Amino acid sequence: MATVNDVLQFIEALAPKSMKESWDNVGLLCGSAKQEVTKILVALDPFESVCKEAAEYGADLLVTHHPVIFQPAKSITDDDGVGRALLQLIRHGISAINAHTNLDCAPGGVNDVLAQKLALDDIQVLHPSGVDENGQPWGLLRCGNAPTQSLEQFLGHVKDALGNEGLRYVAGGKDVRRVAVGGGSCAGALREVADAGCDTFVTADVKYNQFWDAKELGVNLIDAGHFHTENPVVAVLAAKLQAAFPDVEVKISEIHADCMKFY
Amino acid sequence: MATVNDVLQFIEALAPKSMKESWDNVGLLCGSAKQEVTKILVALDPFESVCKEAAEYGADLLVTHHPVIFQPAKSITDDDGVGRALLQLIRHGISAINAHTNLDCAPGGVNDVLAQKLALDDIQVLHPSGVDENGQPWGLLRCGNAPTQSLEQFLGHVKDALGNEGLRYVAGGKDVRRVAVGGGSCAGALREVADAGCDTFVTADVKYNQFWDAKELGVNLIDAGHFHTENPVVAVLAAKLQAAFPDVEVKISEIHADCMKFY
Amino acid sequence: MATVNDVLQFIEALAPKSMKESWDNVGLLCGSAKQEVTKILVALDPFESVCKEAAEYGADLLVTHHPVIFQPAKSITDDDGVGRALLQLIRHGISAINAHTNLDCAPGGVNDVLAQKLALDDIQVLHPSGVDENGQPWGLLRCGNAPTQSLEQFLGHVKDALGNEGLRYVAGGKDVRRVAVGGGSCAGALREVADAGCDTFVTADVKYNQFWDAKELGVNLIDAGHFHTENPVVAVLAAKLQAAFPDVEVKISEIHADCMKFY
Amino acid sequence: MATVNDVLQFIEALAPKSMKESWDNVGLLCGSAKQEVTKILVALDPFESVCKEAAEYGADLLVTHHPVIFQPAKSITDDDGVGRALLQLIRHGISAINAHTNLDCAPGGVNDVLAQKLALDDIQVLHPSGVDENGQPWGLLRCGNAPTQSLEQFLGHVKDALGNEGLRYVAGGKDVRRVAVGGGSCAGALREVADAGCDTFVTADVKYNQFWDAKELGVNLIDAGHFHTENPVVAVLAAKLQAAFPDVEVKISEIHADCMKFY
Amino acid sequence: MATVNDVLQFIEALAPKSMKESWDNVGLLCGSAKQEVTKILVALDPFESVCKEAAEYGADLLVTHHPVIFQPAKSITDDDGVGRALLQLIRHGISAINAHTNLDCAPGGVNDVLAQKLALDDIQVLHPSGVDENGQPWGLLRCGNAPTQSLEQFLGHVKDALGNEGLRYVAGGKDVRRVAVGGGSCAGALREVADAGCDTFVTADVKYNQFWDAKELGVNLIDAGHFHTENPVVAVLAAKLQAAFPDVEVKISEIHADCMKFY
Amino acid sequence: MATVNDVLQFIEALAPKSMKESWDNVGLLCGSAKQEVTKILVALDPFESVCKEAAEYGADLLVTHHPVIFQPAKSITDDDGVGRALLQLIRHGISAINAHTNLDCAPGGVNDVLAQKLALDDIQVLHPSGVDENGQPWGLLRCGNAPTQSLEQFLGHVKDALGNEGLRYVAGGKDVRRVAVGGGSCAGALREVADAGCDTFVTADVKYNQFWDAKELGVNLIDAGHFHTENPVVAVLAAKLQAAFPDVEVKISEIHADCMKFY
Repeated sequence: MATVNDVLQFIEALAPKSMKESWDNVGLLCGSAKQEVTKILVALDPFESVCKEAAEYGADLLVTHHPVIFQPAKSITDDDGVGRALLQLIRHGISAINAHTNLDCAPGGVNDVLAQKLALDDIQVLHPSGVDENGQPWGLLRCGNAPTQSLEQFLGHVKDALGNEGLRYVAGGKDVRRVAVGGGSCAGALREVADAGCDTFVTADVKYNQFWDAKELGVNLIDAGHFHTENPVVAVLAAKLQAAFPDVEVKISEIHADCMKFY
Repeated sequence: MATVNDVLQFIEALAPKSMKESWDNVGLLCGSAKQEVTKILVALDPFESVCKEAAEYGADLLVTHHPVIFQPAKSITDDDGVGRALLQLIRHGISAINAHTNLDCAPGGVNDVLAQKLALDDIQVLHPSGVDENGQPWGLLRCGNAPTQSLEQFLGHVKDALGNEGLRYVAGGKDVRRVAVGGGSCAGALREVADAGCDTFVTADVKYNQFWDAKELGVNLIDAGHFHTENPVVAVLAAKLQAAFPDVEVKISEIHADCMKFY
Repeated sequence: MATVNDVLQFIEALAPKSMKESWDNVGLLCGSAKQEVTKILVALDPFESVCKEAAEYGADLLVTHHPVIFQPAKSITDDDGVGRALLQLIRHGISAINAHTNLDCAPGGVNDVLAQKLALDDIQVLHPSGVDENGQPWGLLRCGNAPTQSLEQFLGHVKDALGNEGLRYVAGGKDVRRVAVGGGSCAGALREVADAGCDTFVTADVKYNQFWDAKELGVNLIDAGHFHTENPVVAVLAAKLQAAFPDVEVKISEIHADCMKFY
Repeated sequence: MATVNDVLQFIEALAPKSMKESWDNVGLLCGSAKQEVTKILVALDPFESVCKEAAEYGADLLVTHHPVIFQPAKSITDDDGVGRALLQLIRHGISAINAHTNLDCAPGGVNDVLAQKLALDDIQVLHPSGVDENGQPWGLLRCGNAPTQSLEQFLGHVKDALGNEGLRYVAGGKDVRRVAVGGGSCAGALREVADAGCDTFVTADVKYNQFWDAKELGVNLIDAGHFHTENPVVAVLAAKLQAAFPDVEVKISEIHADCMKFY
Repeated sequence: MATVNDVLQFIEALAPKSMKESWDNVGLLCGSAKQEVTKILVALDPFESVCKEAAEYGADLLVTHHPVIFQPAKSITDDDGVGRALLQLIRHGISAINAHTNLDCAPGGVNDVLAQKLALDDIQVLHPSGVDENGQPWGLLRCGNAPTQSLEQFLGHVKDALGNEGLRYVAGGKDVRRVAVGGGSCAGALREVADAGCDTFVTADVKYNQFWDAKELGVNLIDAGHFHTENPVVAVLAAKLQAAFPDVEVKISEIHADCMKFY
Repeated sequence: MATVNDVLQFIEALAPKSMKESWDNVGLLCGSAKQEVTKILVALDPFESVCKEAAEYGADLLVTHHPVIFQPAKSITDDDGVGRALLQLIRHGISAINAHTNLDCAPGGVNDVLAQKLALDDIQVLHPSGVDENGQPWGLLRCGNAPTQSLEQFLGHVKDALGNEGLRYVAGGKDVRRVAVGGGSCAGALREVADAGCDTFVTADVKYNQFWDAKELGVNLIDAGHFHTENPVVAVLAAKLQAAFPDVEVKISEIHADCMKFY
């Protein structure tokens, strides 16, 4: 029977630890590598509600993108959300694995899935950080081509493709042809995107001055939401796990959705 | 005739430098204190377009909230927006004064104006940082009471009051009664707001994890936009300058608006 | 019925958090303040074996001197001893409270108990760090008087009083009259002890150069073991807990002993 | 017609940015790379008086050794000399380029010119930092041979060659044969100079303890003034610019001289 | 006649400076390289008493393992032991050379001698830091094989071999077969020793938590004393010096012994 | 008979340690407080040549302004000047005391003596750092009035008063009336001096940019040499020592003079 360690090895083959940022925390963060696995829940975040769902589902293992422990923990108590999530997991014998910035950067990871979801053509790693074992370039951002269209048209396309309730954006004054994507908070890479000749950048958590910087640089900058730019990888990861471990039941979280709304 | 220094003294009486954050840059950042002033342009930001407006208007002085130099400048060239703004100002003989975090914190400043704009009752400084010369408490955030209402109702009220095209928010699961406000990027103070017993927090530039933290803490968190939460102070400041300097022509920027749009 | 929080309040009244070192981690480090308590296990250390004993005993709460988490935890897994201890506790619904350097320093804490165990007279805080709510001085070390005796005699006395299998020491060339004590690793305070006019210092974890420094300073320095200099407080703390919570069953760990042996 | 950028490219071919110290600020520090150039003023320093001279001359470009902005600027006002210099330049539409430690180190730069001015033979880079595109070694200091002479004779020679009003020096107790030179403040390299077998070191801004160190090391140390050891490069640089841009008028500052006098 | 410098070169050929830790201080720390040498005293430590012995012996040179100056000295007075040692040496015209972490790491140094003293077979560097000029690996720790025996038996063997009055240890629950050694304070390398498959580790200055860590890792950890694990190198070094400098009188300190006793 | 400690106490009463800069090293830096004193040599610097003079004089104690150890010493050998000075002192049984920045700041210290030497009137501490036991203000700089005169006249006066071979200066464009003085390297305080309304500043070790800053600030800045601005205190200190210790022979160094010459 598959163990937590088998799943960990499979995930780290997809998204090697060597691709993670130095400040990140990834891998087996809770439980036991020796545990046998019959049910896996997959979700973007290991929030308390998701941990409860895992317990109710009878999962042995929770696989997420974000880590259950990010700031190293000085205590594990029900006084804070991280503590409550960990207590839920441990009391129900659930291990937790995550792949965060390593999955952002890996070939086939968060940003490849996002670029595919947006139906970009000729998807490439923008400024690769290196080449993996299979000779494939890896790195944080992706860029690709879209059929030439107005920004208005592309905004409609993004909303349909990612299922957003709303988008925030600034117009850079150009049609959309060459698009960079970075799921989550990647607006700090704006200048790099502009220098690479992209006219449009889809990311999330964009701040006031970053919208103005985009306008100054003439780049269409679209905040498509942290959740909606990263969540597409969940289904892909779940499918890969199911294919690799056919005897294990793999389920995507049914309750996890973006908490942020538009008015 | 009034000089730049006279205006500087007046502004620093309203918003003393001692109230600014240690990392901030405020005061006379460009030009000459000795310059005579006949026309003042007032705006939230000293972007290049605003500096051009000031030049076309024939202003001697630009008064803004955000500083024209934030990261100390290693060069002043037209290669970047800050350089272009400064070249515009200096070539047209325009001095520039700003009041940033000191105006956020001052009695009657950014956050008092925001709280009044939202028609809160019994407005108080949340955790004052000190007491000014007139015995008035000062500090970053304000809190006050709203008529008890649903979050839905309050969202409509905010949008009307501040003129937003859209809002982003998370529901904390409570009606709105006691509201904290912090113009610009103040979501880092979320826990402090929750601990003070506020059910609702209006601020801007809110990030993914901060929306989730608000949900966990049971606080309605509303991102009402950096521009729309801070810009109300501009008209108030312009009016105070006009009253103090009746012989000077004071104008509010006509072209400066939020560049960020909703879709 | 008593809760974990009731016990926490009682312990922090004995050893206030304000007395702890800045680098220390104390208080409720695992579980829930709201949990009801019927059985408490008290021990010097929360090692995995002690956590198992607590589980077998049916404890709801483990009270120790050393913290179960010292280096903030990046993961909670069975790959390391800290993770195994936490998994034991949480799976068996056991909360964990500790009082470490605050208990070293508090009146009636580790070092007062050690001084009493050594039957010193006129026990005082050596260089008090402050005065507590009751006007009692507090601080790390204690000093007191012993009947004048040879070092040889005093070594026998220490061994009898603390139950050591062996002692390590250096002779400072003086009889024993005025003795400083610091349970655990306090040899860094050697010069302070010498300057205070003590002829003898009982502590633990003494290093090579510290023995030589003591010889140079003319101080008898005795390494009486980390375990044996701190463990006496366990019985005292258990008794105080039992007296304060008569309806709770309080037990001292039966299996915890020093792992280090002499040959 | 030549642009500021053309001149910048020419200067950075002479003195590549890669040769500058990490703490230095060089290149186009004021104005616009796109500006057309008809008149260039060249000087050692961009002081306010030199900027005025540039304005009166009708220069489009000021080329100097020292940077117009060294400490990154938090404001550009007439309250300080740097602000006044920048206001002068910008109001008169003058761009500013400098080459500082890159020009110290470059082949044919400050220190090669100084060594030639002193008529040294067989001039070499003392401890090269690297080799440039043409295979020439580069680095801060130069050394070369002088005809064997007394220190007294050599002092007279330096004064004649550099035009100093006075010199400060310490006698190392040796005749002059092998001389190291470092324009500006290079006395920190004294030990390196001694270890390389030089008997004499010509530099500037020498401090009390450095004179004594030289005496102890047996090196003749001559403070020939920051201005007089660096200014010779100005004429060389002006001539190279004139040759490269024959249609541009290139002038050496007429008013810039050392402000320091001897009594 | 041999000079201090000759001895220094000989010692640094045995234990090159490049093998020392970055924080260490080794080499000629007192006196003069030019001094002629007729008598050398060799000892583990340059304590005041040893310096007196050197003076009484009429030594020109003291060779030790530990440095006479470790914390750089702000003064040289008789107020502290280091000052008194230096005053002794200098007043009697005695130079001082030491080889510390370079001698720990060097082939044939402290840890090779310790491993030989314990009669280990097939002694190897555990995780070499590099290879020396002769192609020999070097590094801090050594490991080797012992005849399979109980821990009890091995403790007796260590005590006999090193001459300890007592030992401190924790049982890891295994027989002794493969032993790592690190003279002085090397217990920080415990995990490395365990990962390398050693069942037993002989070192010194072991702290409470390190004994527990060893127990958790299943390693027999023996504290055989800083003095007794390092002092064996003294005789070896003295013999090498005598062989290299047959005309010099080389003596091992007669008075230096461990000051720490067991009770 | 007087001891080194008696002299130390006397000097530290004149120039308390609490007045020194945090980075400084003062007091008894070599030898023994218990040593009896019959002959004291007083000098500005404890260079090797001065230490030899002390030995030839038969001094028991050397009292200087600058410390014999400034950078804490990692070795005491004849490879460098500090080592040779210390070896000289220790081999001849000479202790060394210094008072450095504490003597700069103390009432009656370096800068009071310098101001008196320049015959200033109404000498005051410029920006006192505190008040001493006798209620007298203390601090680094002094200021006072000179009879109104041209800078030329004052330069002649300084040269006569301090005995300089030459002076370096920049003219601030004002007559001399109010003069600040700071012996040694105090030009970093230039702005403070200008802000205090002084027209002239006498100090030493002035750098290129500091001369230009003075010119910009309109201050006459005179570099009167580190030696010549500080050495006057030596005679005053020697006289005070002689008066306090009439049975001790006190001598001022006869060989110590500035090594730096003008040409």
